[in-house]
Amino acid sequence: MSEAVADVTADLRSDTLTRPTQAMREAMASAPVGDDVYGEDPTVLALQRQVADLLGHEDALFTPTGSMANQLGVRLHVAPGQELVTDDLAHVLRAEMGAAAVLSGISARSYPTTGGLLDVDAAMALAVTEGGAYQVGTACVVVENTHNFGGGTIQPLEAMQDLQERAHARGMAVHLDGARLWNAHVATGTPLADYGACADTVSVCLSKGLGAPVGSLLVGSSDRMQQARVWRKRFGGGMRQVGILAAAGRYALEHQLDRLAEDHARCQQVAQAVAAVNPEAVDPGAVHTNILVLRVAPAGWSAADFIEAAGERGVLGYATGPEHVRFVWHLDVDDAQTDHAAAVLTELLASRA
Amino acid sequence: MSEAVADVTADLRSDTLTRPTQAMREAMASAPVGDDVYGEDPTVLALQRQVADLLGHEDALFTPTGSMANQLGVRLHVAPGQELVTDDLAHVLRAEMGAAAVLSGISARSYPTTGGLLDVDAAMALAVTEGGAYQVGTACVVVENTHNFGGGTIQPLEAMQDLQERAHARGMAVHLDGARLWNAHVATGTPLADYGACADTVSVCLSKGLGAPVGSLLVGSSDRMQQARVWRKRFGGGMRQVGILAAAGRYALEHQLDRLAEDHARCQQVAQAVAAVNPEAVDPGAVHTNILVLRVAPAGWSAADFIEAAGERGVLGYATGPEHVRFVWHLDVDDAQTDHAAAVLTELLASRA
Amino acid sequence: MSEAVADVTADLRSDTLTRPTQAMREAMASAPVGDDVYGEDPTVLALQRQVADLLGHEDALFTPTGSMANQLGVRLHVAPGQELVTDDLAHVLRAEMGAAAVLSGISARSYPTTGGLLDVDAAMALAVTEGGAYQVGTACVVVENTHNFGGGTIQPLEAMQDLQERAHARGMAVHLDGARLWNAHVATGTPLADYGACADTVSVCLSKGLGAPVGSLLVGSSDRMQQARVWRKRFGGGMRQVGILAAAGRYALEHQLDRLAEDHARCQQVAQAVAAVNPEAVDPGAVHTNILVLRVAPAGWSAADFIEAAGERGVLGYATGPEHVRFVWHLDVDDAQTDHAAAVLTELLASRA
Amino acid sequence: MSEAVADVTADLRSDTLTRPTQAMREAMASAPVGDDVYGEDPTVLALQRQVADLLGHEDALFTPTGSMANQLGVRLHVAPGQELVTDDLAHVLRAEMGAAAVLSGISARSYPTTGGLLDVDAAMALAVTEGGAYQVGTACVVVENTHNFGGGTIQPLEAMQDLQERAHARGMAVHLDGARLWNAHVATGTPLADYGACADTVSVCLSKGLGAPVGSLLVGSSDRMQQARVWRKRFGGGMRQVGILAAAGRYALEHQLDRLAEDHARCQQVAQAVAAVNPEAVDPGAVHTNILVLRVAPAGWSAADFIEAAGERGVLGYATGPEHVRFVWHLDVDDAQTDHAAAVLTELLASRA
Repeated sequence: MSEAVADVTADLRSDTLTRPTQAMREAMASAPVGDDVYGEDPTVLALQRQVADLLGHEDALFTPTGSMANQLGVRLHVAPGQELVTDDLAHVLRAEMGAAAVLSGISARSYPTTGGLLDVDAAMALAVTEGGAYQVGTACVVVENTHNFGGGTIQPLEAMQDLQERAHARGMAVHLDGARLWNAHVATGTPLADYGACADTVSVCLSKGLGAPVGSLLVGSSDRMQQARVWRKRFGGGMRQVGILAAAGRYALEHQLDRLAEDHARCQQVAQAVAAVNPEAVDPGAVHTNILVLRVAPAGWSAADFIEAAGERGVLGYATGPEHVRFVWHLDVDDAQTDHAAAVLTELLASRA
Repeated sequence: MSEAVADVTADLRSDTLTRPTQAMREAMASAPVGDDVYGEDPTVLALQRQVADLLGHEDALFTPTGSMANQLGVRLHVAPGQELVTDDLAHVLRAEMGAAAVLSGISARSYPTTGGLLDVDAAMALAVTEGGAYQVGTACVVVENTHNFGGGTIQPLEAMQDLQERAHARGMAVHLDGARLWNAHVATGTPLADYGACADTVSVCLSKGLGAPVGSLLVGSSDRMQQARVWRKRFGGGMRQVGILAAAGRYALEHQLDRLAEDHARCQQVAQAVAAVNPEAVDPGAVHTNILVLRVAPAGWSAADFIEAAGERGVLGYATGPEHVRFVWHLDVDDAQTDHAAAVLTELLASRA
Repeated sequence: MSEAVADVTADLRSDTLTRPTQAMREAMASAPVGDDVYGEDPTVLALQRQVADLLGHEDALFTPTGSMANQLGVRLHVAPGQELVTDDLAHVLRAEMGAAAVLSGISARSYPTTGGLLDVDAAMALAVTEGGAYQVGTACVVVENTHNFGGGTIQPLEAMQDLQERAHARGMAVHLDGARLWNAHVATGTPLADYGACADTVSVCLSKGLGAPVGSLLVGSSDRMQQARVWRKRFGGGMRQVGILAAAGRYALEHQLDRLAEDHARCQQVAQAVAAVNPEAVDPGAVHTNILVLRVAPAGWSAADFIEAAGERGVLGYATGPEHVRFVWHLDVDDAQTDHAAAVLTELLASRA
Repeated sequence: MSEAVADVTADLRSDTLTRPTQAMREAMASAPVGDDVYGEDPTVLALQRQVADLLGHEDALFTPTGSMANQLGVRLHVAPGQELVTDDLAHVLRAEMGAAAVLSGISARSYPTTGGLLDVDAAMALAVTEGGAYQVGTACVVVENTHNFGGGTIQPLEAMQDLQERAHARGMAVHLDGARLWNAHVATGTPLADYGACADTVSVCLSKGLGAPVGSLLVGSSDRMQQARVWRKRFGGGMRQVGILAAAGRYALEHQLDRLAEDHARCQQVAQAVAAVNPEAVDPGAVHTNILVLRVAPAGWSAADFIEAAGERGVLGYATGPEHVRFVWHLDVDDAQTDHAAAVLTELLASRA
């Protein structure tokens, strides 16, 4: 841990930073395990069953990361030389190091959005499904819910249903990057299975707001999960006694899912505090869950300078671009830290507004 | 050749359809040749020198197709896992069968345009150059001039200069897909070297309006052309006595470049005829060169039905999407064929307007 | 766990099957952790330092699997379109699902061996380092120690030194697949750093004989480990609070390294028992560590039938090919299980000899 | 053309050096053509039909190079992550710049041979077809006839039949790299269709001994050729008025096929002359066609020095490795040049023997 991090009051760089609680550690320590490459780890099998059921799909597969779960998902739908269509802030295109092209030869085109919100008409207009042997065929549309770089925004269920229907009608699959689908579920009350019904494959992550140390899952049909298992090994993700990690996931689903509402409330509190002093920086109505994206350029800040200034005052965040910064609430951030963050961010944005 | 094609009066499916003239055939038949894999074909060397000089670059490399020239260009600039940014109608993303991802592991994001026209602000906003190890780095912006699916539109030189300057300032390269750069040059009088100065690599094609049977070239620095030569072999494009084909290119540059103006005039004539009966179908002011894209949906046509109906009347075109059709003028289309095309297209669009 | 596995007396399918002990579980439960994507997990940092030091390299990187560690290693040395050379039983070519080609565009040629033992002359004869732009260049030689499909054989240190010297003299790198290098070290007493000095990168695995549930490491120069970190994320291996897993590795290195000698002794005991009844099946002198490969074809068995017959008698193994079967000793196999395995295997091989 | 090449008496670097004759040039100049991307070039269609019939396959596809024809062939048979098996001197692995891995994610293992001659037992022993989800599956065996780096050796038809039968029995395809299959046919009298019957796909080249300037073909089933057409475009090989090149191929098949026998006779003459002074350098019985590989190391030469010395005396060849050099007879080498080559090579090898 670097010097700079030592005096942090609120580490809001990401909800990936959560550390396992004592109770979660005990669950891991007592988990029955086996060799998951052979499909024999009972805790993994139980977690896969549980998550498949939650999402309303036939089967599930544990992966070391959310990126790998997404990359397996799109690999199943898109052959080398075909393309996926998604929005231009999508994690699958922007933050997975170009893996879809490198690992799977998948081409992509993207459309702009407001806050990452699904634009079904734009996606459908972009897709090419009758190009024959002369144009790249679009095989999959990817939607992210909640949307990370869009600011934790929730995709309306109706839009997702519309997407699924129109994509299927044209022979395309839908992959849902649900790394933070838990947050959408808790914020809206929409059952996970209702979201799950809108996609052919869904990735979910245990290692963000849920607070497990490592792991994601992909859900889909049994056939697809069989194929995903082979490709997981090819991608280097075939781990052994994974029950240790799966136990943390099972604990988190039982004990740490509902509390995501607290993260949302704290994040909203700060959004409103900031908007009160600088309405250009953020619209609290567009802050749906645990992610606060602030536009700092109008206040005269570069994103990098703003992150540095906030860091010096003990509030850590992340520059998502030259003009935007991101702060994320999670398990290890309490009310006092939230109050401190509100104070620092309003001070910095008021001072230049 | 199928039955349907037998009675064609005007084959406007593409300017790739041009056939070599007798004089061009004689130039090919008498060309000195050698083994170009060893760099010993004198006609190829002469053509490469000529085209490099025309574009104002150090060196050039002959390729079997324009797609391979583009794919070598982007391969030189973008490492596996990095991305290119371009518009969402770009040939390099839409009509090269996903090659950038398959052959080179290149990721992509795209922005929407009006008629394929370069939007430098949009491209710059999309590009990510400070994402470090967490976001895909944009290494190259691709611009297409003239723009095929955009309707043969010409990119303004100022926009290309602006793109080059801003891309370089952020450490990104520019590749110009100049398959039809000849058309832009003839239509505007802008010297080819002025366009060439706006990009790190440029592809140009001999086998479209210029009328040569086969071949394209990539131009750039000598170092890059050396690398491109190795990758050309890896892609399966290292041909032998290529002077036969290069001779056609040299003939075309001498004798068939200026006449592109005739294609432009004929295309404009039909655009105005169509607009007179159905202004929704096309804005003649947006028809810059030899490509006519018509929006047929407002007149109640699907693109596929329209192409079929025009074909039955002896005018062949291509559906570029569900609502748009394309007709392209070239060496083998004369005034009479143009008059016939104008008659057929106005009839079809007037009848439903 | 399937029915068939329920009555197993000795599960010798692989040493990947080991389950964490109670003490190891407690070490995991109390490990300090952080977000390893940000390089902030103290237990991971400590393990990486420890393993780098053990192998005598500058730095190390934790990976979810041994396959990913190998694939990162070869990715660092071999550019797309270049090749690696190794033996035709090598894990990196035979058991990583073709990942080197898929993930990194790496070509390969291989040479035959006796029991996987390094043949430096054969490797050097195969390598091409002066092929210029016409032949694939060999950029890396891979050696595996101990050699899995070769039967746990130990590569002589002198051969490895010779390989390194001759490979470097021709500009090639050496990657050591040391998933079971611990076994070679314990069996021979050769310091790990002496093996480490023979390669530019080394992978080692915590999840085989060492008994940790998950994880491997790659070691090499600091520059290379920086690159490997980026590619680890691209491959989907950038996990978060990895200290949980690293703590198991640290425990294993302290408490479970020397005991590999017991596995070797038990494996040798069974090799001798089998050879006593069927000398064609195995040469005990070629059984160096914890892996017993039996040639069952001369006794009239197909590998598949033999594995089934042994399994029915409570001894689980793996068919490595149509004529060979493999049994592996590890942490969870004791003397009684070993005696049972000896009885079963000798019975099956004697009955048909 | 470089200075060094100016005074050449016999350019034996490769049979790719052949230049089109006047009659072939006239055939090209008068060929009817069309756009082959649309499948409308009559001369290409006729050549494809002719070659498919000659080889006894359903259909054929023209490609710009032999490398692309091979790469399309293996792409059809081997999915990303699967492997091909071939000999360690095979052109497809050694001289196509690693394309199988880069373009198609194809893994490979190889076996050693004597002079490139097919060893069906070795290939079958190497192949893995029951590895399930744990070992790379072998999907295709590649055989090269005649074998370039093996010294123009001819594969016995019986061995090829045996390979096909045993490969098919295990679910594997066979691809025949027949770039110089014409030479095998002329040397043995074996009908081309008999060779063709031994493989699922065959590549043949027009641009080597046959003397056409550019082009190869892949033959196989109609379904496979349809897929190959799409991948040809993806690889950048979808050319337009290809009839110009196809006409040369048709001329060559009619007029320049039988004359390969002259190349064989001249090559054999030199082989015997060399063996007479230095039997270690070559066994004339192993010189089957138009390629002479000499082992120069026993005479104290490095391959590079030998090539330089021969070149200074007007005889150009190619170093295929550190100890071997290659000289190739073709259309543009006559008796006088052959006599000169014999004199130079015997002088150089006798002087040090």
